[in-house]
Amino acid sequence: MSDALKDAPSGGPDISHVTLKNGLEIVVIPDHRTPVVTHMVWYRNGSADDPIGKSGIAHFLEHLMFKGTEKHRQGEFSDVVTALGGQENAFTSVDYTAYYQRVAREHLKTMMEFEADRMTGLVLTDEIVDPERDVVIEERRMRTDTDPAAELGEALAATLFTHHPYGKPIIGYMHEIEGLKREDALNYYRRFYTPENAILVVAGDVSKDEVVRLADETYGKIAARGEKPVRLRPREPDPRSTRRVTLADPKVEQPSLQLAWLAPSYTTATKGEAEALEVLVQLIGASGTGRLHRKLVMDEAVAVAAGAWYQSTAVDRSRLLVYGVPRPGVTLEALEDRILAVLDDMAKHPVEAGELRRAKTRLVADAIYAQDSQSSLARMYGSALATGSTVDDVKTWPEAIETVDAEAVQKAAQTCLNRHRMVTGYLMKDEAA
Amino acid sequence: MSDALKDAPSGGPDISHVTLKNGLEIVVIPDHRTPVVTHMVWYRNGSADDPIGKSGIAHFLEHLMFKGTEKHRQGEFSDVVTALGGQENAFTSVDYTAYYQRVAREHLKTMMEFEADRMTGLVLTDEIVDPERDVVIEERRMRTDTDPAAELGEALAATLFTHHPYGKPIIGYMHEIEGLKREDALNYYRRFYTPENAILVVAGDVSKDEVVRLADETYGKIAARGEKPVRLRPREPDPRSTRRVTLADPKVEQPSLQLAWLAPSYTTATKGEAEALEVLVQLIGASGTGRLHRKLVMDEAVAVAAGAWYQSTAVDRSRLLVYGVPRPGVTLEALEDRILAVLDDMAKHPVEAGELRRAKTRLVADAIYAQDSQSSLARMYGSALATGSTVDDVKTWPEAIETVDAEAVQKAAQTCLNRHRMVTGYLMKDEAA
Repeated sequence: MSDALKDAPSGGPDISHVTLKNGLEIVVIPDHRTPVVTHMVWYRNGSADDPIGKSGIAHFLEHLMFKGTEKHRQGEFSDVVTALGGQENAFTSVDYTAYYQRVAREHLKTMMEFEADRMTGLVLTDEIVDPERDVVIEERRMRTDTDPAAELGEALAATLFTHHPYGKPIIGYMHEIEGLKREDALNYYRRFYTPENAILVVAGDVSKDEVVRLADETYGKIAARGEKPVRLRPREPDPRSTRRVTLADPKVEQPSLQLAWLAPSYTTATKGEAEALEVLVQLIGASGTGRLHRKLVMDEAVAVAAGAWYQSTAVDRSRLLVYGVPRPGVTLEALEDRILAVLDDMAKHPVEAGELRRAKTRLVADAIYAQDSQSSLARMYGSALATGSTVDDVKTWPEAIETVDAEAVQKAAQTCLNRHRMVTGYLMKDEAA
Repeated sequence: MSDALKDAPSGGPDISHVTLKNGLEIVVIPDHRTPVVTHMVWYRNGSADDPIGKSGIAHFLEHLMFKGTEKHRQGEFSDVVTALGGQENAFTSVDYTAYYQRVAREHLKTMMEFEADRMTGLVLTDEIVDPERDVVIEERRMRTDTDPAAELGEALAATLFTHHPYGKPIIGYMHEIEGLKREDALNYYRRFYTPENAILVVAGDVSKDEVVRLADETYGKIAARGEKPVRLRPREPDPRSTRRVTLADPKVEQPSLQLAWLAPSYTTATKGEAEALEVLVQLIGASGTGRLHRKLVMDEAVAVAAGAWYQSTAVDRSRLLVYGVPRPGVTLEALEDRILAVLDDMAKHPVEAGELRRAKTRLVADAIYAQDSQSSLARMYGSALATGSTVDDVKTWPEAIETVDAEAVQKAAQTCLNRHRMVTGYLMKDEAA
């Protein structure tokens, strides 16, 4: 939960969580250091909610949300943000789609008016949709289809998640993006863009009462849809095999290696399980201090980089990745062996008290430092709530990390990092081509 | 199309294909050798049409179709077939579900009455559905979950088809079978069991006019639904990587190896492409005479068995598999190398005329011999029509095979058997366990 669930430092923000009558949840995070606000709306739908054959629709709709409404012409919202000296952006993940603006505090209501307006007022014509589809097609071509590492990442995800939609690319498969129509975007919009499915997160130089009053005057006018939209999420079956995905391409300059496992998320884990994985990943993968770096980059000099990543904030069973970049002359097989030796050691021997203490301190400290950024703070709460955690889960996270002991870490390594259930990804230079 | 599309030998059956007013298609295959009929109903839906999270429902419904209707108590249909000295069965595939009976010719109308009755009259209660679900759960446990080869097959399919539902097991994932409810079965039944979605195939000692008259008196009374049900079939993206699936289990006595590729089916192929693959598979994989057998089992003695299989009869892009079982002392890697050498040779050099001639003769002869069995004959037409081919495609199939030349075979090998797009499956004994 390194970028998601963190506590306020003592004396830190007094966070409120209320729900409007139409079902819109509101999280207010007072932050009076500067007279600005971060205004975010999170929708509980992402690429894993794309209907069959319509992969990419969540992301495509994110683009289309900037195309204007019945009240405001295309680009007007962005122009206003710019004119007010603000910043804006949006992003789509597997589980959520979010929109945010950062403006001076007195413009909060204006942001709310625009954002509430586009929750229901979006207007799409083929003249708007068709060229934007070309933009997304070009985005996919640039970011994925000409980048062997991205292509391998896509194949690796599809192999790890054979049934659950986390295996689909967020941007969508090219042949399905090409077929996305105006009506697909509107159907998806009508299904998911409702007050019951949204979370408003406001961080900044504001009070709870002020935010709730303004939200009620803007978002509060949107009629409730009646019920939350349903997410159709088939469960990934337990894997029974080892899988290796190899991509060889002449464009590859630097071979690399990934090891991936299914792993419980905070939402699916039993108590303490995700926290133990978080500490485990910190122990093995922390930049500069983790065991993979110390043993393989420093001591053995078989890698130029090595680390780990755990997608802890997710609605469903998620993933844990370990990666390594070999030194010239070291094969991927040899590096994989050395990585597995480091992981096996974690499973075989309990971690020593000092090393565990330092890892937990770093993990919590990183989270607290990230709160320096108002937008990180807002994202932390937004992503947690959008994936099924609570404000309280976020606030008590440091204590939960504190309770992780050596036994829990060892058990997490034994349970999760099973090489009989592992998916490896090899990125290689195609010398023949 | 080895078990599916074959021509009648000259002077053979004069096959009719008509459609009733309610949309039911009828194929009549006169076969006057014995006074029996094979009566089959094919529905154009299989496991690849299982809704998200409901894998196994097509197969489960096949079981439930024997549970009685408003008119006939559970088991009555089967009892009548037995009392008449007949046989019956049913099967579910990725693309279709079929029910058949073989009885003396005078009982054809009785079969039609029962089968037409259960097209719309199925009655399901929880008391019927719940124990039958346990039967299916036990079937899965026996056939898949305790058989490492079956488990590997499932993992291999899921890796080959990451997006298209051919990657799902026909019987369903255990955790989803466990959740299948009476209402799921009825929803699926109402969606797909309609005259517009069915094909009646009658082979035997009957005339077209008689069959059509009887069908009209029975099936003809079923009201049309108004339109054919829609199949939601996302297209599998073109693979960009090599994937290997390894399953090691202490129960494995005999290691084995599979190589799998996506391959066009008769329905998706360009003209001649599937026929060339059919001939290619015959050349490399035919039992006792194919190159894999001759080179690897006979000459090099590295395998105890080796062959190939092509699922040519399918609605969507399908699969081609090559397999090998190593001799003791030969590793799977070594056997894979030797298999790839045989395949590379097919891609590099055109096949010699005599070898090609013999392969095509065997292929067509096998198809003609299979017509000796009335039920094979009926299945051939049923599976073809249920996956998008026509009666004419089946009848002209031998001529289409005749046109395959050495160049087409070589091109098929080059295009399909690309090792950069290959999925391999390794079944190994887990010595450590």
